[in-house]
Amino acid sequence: MCYVLCAIHYLILAIKKPGTRYLVPGTWYLVPGTRISSSQNIRIFAPVMQKQQIRKGFSKLNKDQKVDLTASYFEHPEEAARELKSFWHENKDIQQRLDEFAENTISNFFFPYGIAPNFVINGNMYLVPMVIEESSVVAAASNAAKFWSERGGFHAEVISTTKIGQVHFNWKGDVEKLHAAMPEIREKLIAETRSITKNMRERGGGILDIELIDMSDELDNYYQLKASFETVDSMGANFINSCLEEFGQQFRRFLKEDDRFKGEEEECEIVMAILSNYTPDCLVKTWVECDISEFEQMDRNLSAMEFARKFERAVRIAQKDTYRATTHNKGVMNGVDAVVLATGNDFRAIEACAHTYASRKGKYASLTNVSITDNIFRYELTLPLAMGTVGGLTSLHPLARFSLELLNNPGAQQLMMIAAAVGLANNFSALKSLTTKGIQVGHMKMHLYNILNHIGVTKQEKDRAVAHFQDKKVSFSLVKELVANMRKEKS
Amino acid sequence: MCYVLCAIHYLILAIKKPGTRYLVPGTWYLVPGTRISSSQNIRIFAPVMQKQQIRKGFSKLNKDQKVDLTASYFEHPEEAARELKSFWHENKDIQQRLDEFAENTISNFFFPYGIAPNFVINGNMYLVPMVIEESSVVAAASNAAKFWSERGGFHAEVISTTKIGQVHFNWKGDVEKLHAAMPEIREKLIAETRSITKNMRERGGGILDIELIDMSDELDNYYQLKASFETVDSMGANFINSCLEEFGQQFRRFLKEDDRFKGEEEECEIVMAILSNYTPDCLVKTWVECDISEFEQMDRNLSAMEFARKFERAVRIAQKDTYRATTHNKGVMNGVDAVVLATGNDFRAIEACAHTYASRKGKYASLTNVSITDNIFRYELTLPLAMGTVGGLTSLHPLARFSLELLNNPGAQQLMMIAAAVGLANNFSALKSLTTKGIQVGHMKMHLYNILNHIGVTKQEKDRAVAHFQDKKVSFSLVKELVANMRKEKS
Repeated sequence: MCYVLCAIHYLILAIKKPGTRYLVPGTWYLVPGTRISSSQNIRIFAPVMQKQQIRKGFSKLNKDQKVDLTASYFEHPEEAARELKSFWHENKDIQQRLDEFAENTISNFFFPYGIAPNFVINGNMYLVPMVIEESSVVAAASNAAKFWSERGGFHAEVISTTKIGQVHFNWKGDVEKLHAAMPEIREKLIAETRSITKNMRERGGGILDIELIDMSDELDNYYQLKASFETVDSMGANFINSCLEEFGQQFRRFLKEDDRFKGEEEECEIVMAILSNYTPDCLVKTWVECDISEFEQMDRNLSAMEFARKFERAVRIAQKDTYRATTHNKGVMNGVDAVVLATGNDFRAIEACAHTYASRKGKYASLTNVSITDNIFRYELTLPLAMGTVGGLTSLHPLARFSLELLNNPGAQQLMMIAAAVGLANNFSALKSLTTKGIQVGHMKMHLYNILNHIGVTKQEKDRAVAHFQDKKVSFSLVKELVANMRKEKS
Repeated sequence: MCYVLCAIHYLILAIKKPGTRYLVPGTWYLVPGTRISSSQNIRIFAPVMQKQQIRKGFSKLNKDQKVDLTASYFEHPEEAARELKSFWHENKDIQQRLDEFAENTISNFFFPYGIAPNFVINGNMYLVPMVIEESSVVAAASNAAKFWSERGGFHAEVISTTKIGQVHFNWKGDVEKLHAAMPEIREKLIAETRSITKNMRERGGGILDIELIDMSDELDNYYQLKASFETVDSMGANFINSCLEEFGQQFRRFLKEDDRFKGEEEECEIVMAILSNYTPDCLVKTWVECDISEFEQMDRNLSAMEFARKFERAVRIAQKDTYRATTHNKGVMNGVDAVVLATGNDFRAIEACAHTYASRKGKYASLTNVSITDNIFRYELTLPLAMGTVGGLTSLHPLARFSLELLNNPGAQQLMMIAAAVGLANNFSALKSLTTKGIQVGHMKMHLYNILNHIGVTKQEKDRAVAHFQDKKVSFSLVKELVANMRKEKS
């Protein structure tokens, strides 16, 4: 539960287990239920115990009823409802659209929308929109962008754009017959999905191929129709799934109708038909390169070559050690996801795919590679990125559309290159910090704000604390101590 | 570029390449620059070409200047700035706090904040807050929650809570000497980090162990100090990184000062010191189970046992086929991430860890397992989840704090169980749909709203379209056709 302790000059928010309270003599208290007109956002209600009965029909309530019901779980329902509503968009139509993206929507969760300027990618300059809640990520991307903008920028190319879908089925029979019939099956499935693929074909996409995969040595009687698709500028999930479900039905019909298949061969059980988020043939590559001498100012303790060699070592470690690789790639994904979120793409799909790709050789490893040849340093990232710039939320979410416009309305391939470049930038900055001054100096500077906000300080105290920690390591207890000392001095 | 075409009764938004325009005879046009007072949120400015010069000092601008500079990249900067500002929180102090989470913040990206009611987890009932932009995810979680709430609910247990960090270093010498010195090294590193670990130790956590890892067979002269930590209710990244950086410095000092190490053995190069996001010993397990007969109403075409067997088959496929496993696990992460986001945790860390874990046996595979024994169906998910309920944004972001209060202020272990249960719920619903009616029927119902909003329809047209597609498959061209027909009828 939350109790707010209000002294004359400052506020402290303390989170305590029920039954214990801070009681400091000489301090003023605000008891739960009292409205607080502080400049800090401090909620003063506490949740009541979860109500235990099953509640049917929640989804059928209107939005206000859902808000009220949710708020009723708090000790001060009106405050809770007010807080939820304070995050609604003032324009009702925009809010309604946002509500319709998902179900049982009662508010919006705000993520910081920031800008990483000076991203030069294939010679074009971008202000890149980044949506991310983690401190330092936008700063790290911006720093790398600026450094490389003066050294040729980021280079990027799309290697492939193929998406994958599967019809998983159980079937008993002579698999050679199935193989032999595949040309006709392929033709039938493509023909029978013409109405579904019409729009996509007009845009230059469609079904690329359908193959039979025999996995009966892994699971008895298990086969797949594995289809590949080109979905142009859309991520294509709905398109692919609609095709696949139709494939399943038409495939069953084919087995029944074709004379070659007899008895139990006529029957097949479609287990499921669904796209794969693993798209190892929807690949983008991005890289930076420069003469080693460009690293002369990188660190006061390392020569340019020493820095390059240490950086190279850090990458080699991520190629060999899985514990390191996970975090190394997480640093890539910090940047990739920030662009994915800002443009209304699906980060779970992007994440699942990238990490599966990182494990493709049997051991989870780094997505980046580095080389130092003839004094040229080259750092490279290759990863699959199934992104879209049409469909889904890309044009429906006002800020997703804003992001795409700010990026000059890229197609999916351009967006793949932008997101990958930002990923490489973030990873480059992370490795640069890790191999020089360490990550905590920069990270903790941002974290300092969070600690100060958590403690609850005045503007003056905040400024003094920031100055104090400019060249020192930050820890929660050190900050608390400093603030306590400042206050002691004053009183 | 975007042009808005305004007819008397409806609005169509068309995204076209520069240089081409829709020009439909008899239609009214709004040219870019005209303000539109439509109920739809349609932006009518278009971006100008990216400005090519490098812009220094962006981060030093104040927020209004950053907004103005970003907006200046649009054809109608005032509209662009207004749009960005329309997503600001009305309370300046709350907005400032949100701004401070990241850098160069100019607005907030809104994600739908929804509720999945009726989650029974270890006998406790929860309204689970979910932040997710994808349609059907909250509905799927809610459906599974309701189904299982009447069948014992979700069971969950935390198996382990250990976090990992590494000091990566290069060293030349007799590794047996290092091994022999490890007890003293360990003692010294723990002693020298007492001030950093003080708070954490008071909360019941701290450094658990520090071991020497010899990886010199993978990379010449490469070793690690691999440390394990208990961080109680915090995710612990800053704590772990602060410890590790100090370990690195103290370890170097030890080698220099200890008599056993001579010549080049006295030197070591710390490549980097950083936590690992891969935490295979921070594991949570969650499961559901029921008698097979409970599945009698699951599908009109399948008996209870047929459903159970088909579901089992779908899981076995995800255990054998990587293409399927990626999407299968993505379905788990839809639910996990929605809770991660709602509670202010870091989804990149959670994702990287879960997928690395899925690949731990050398082949990327399903995170879930299923069994059918003596007519009892049991479905289980085991995954590592390093989550926090204190520190980071958990109490600083107003809605993250709201979420935690709604969940009755869980500790990290409780939150791990809740997030895992929601992940299992989402995956269960996805497999249930996939193995019965297919995923598109339900998915497309939500997608229909998006298509209708994209086309731009009246309330009346929307209602008619929803009724029309109640029992039909949705595709973009079918919806477009229907709306066109409705309008033809009318005119």
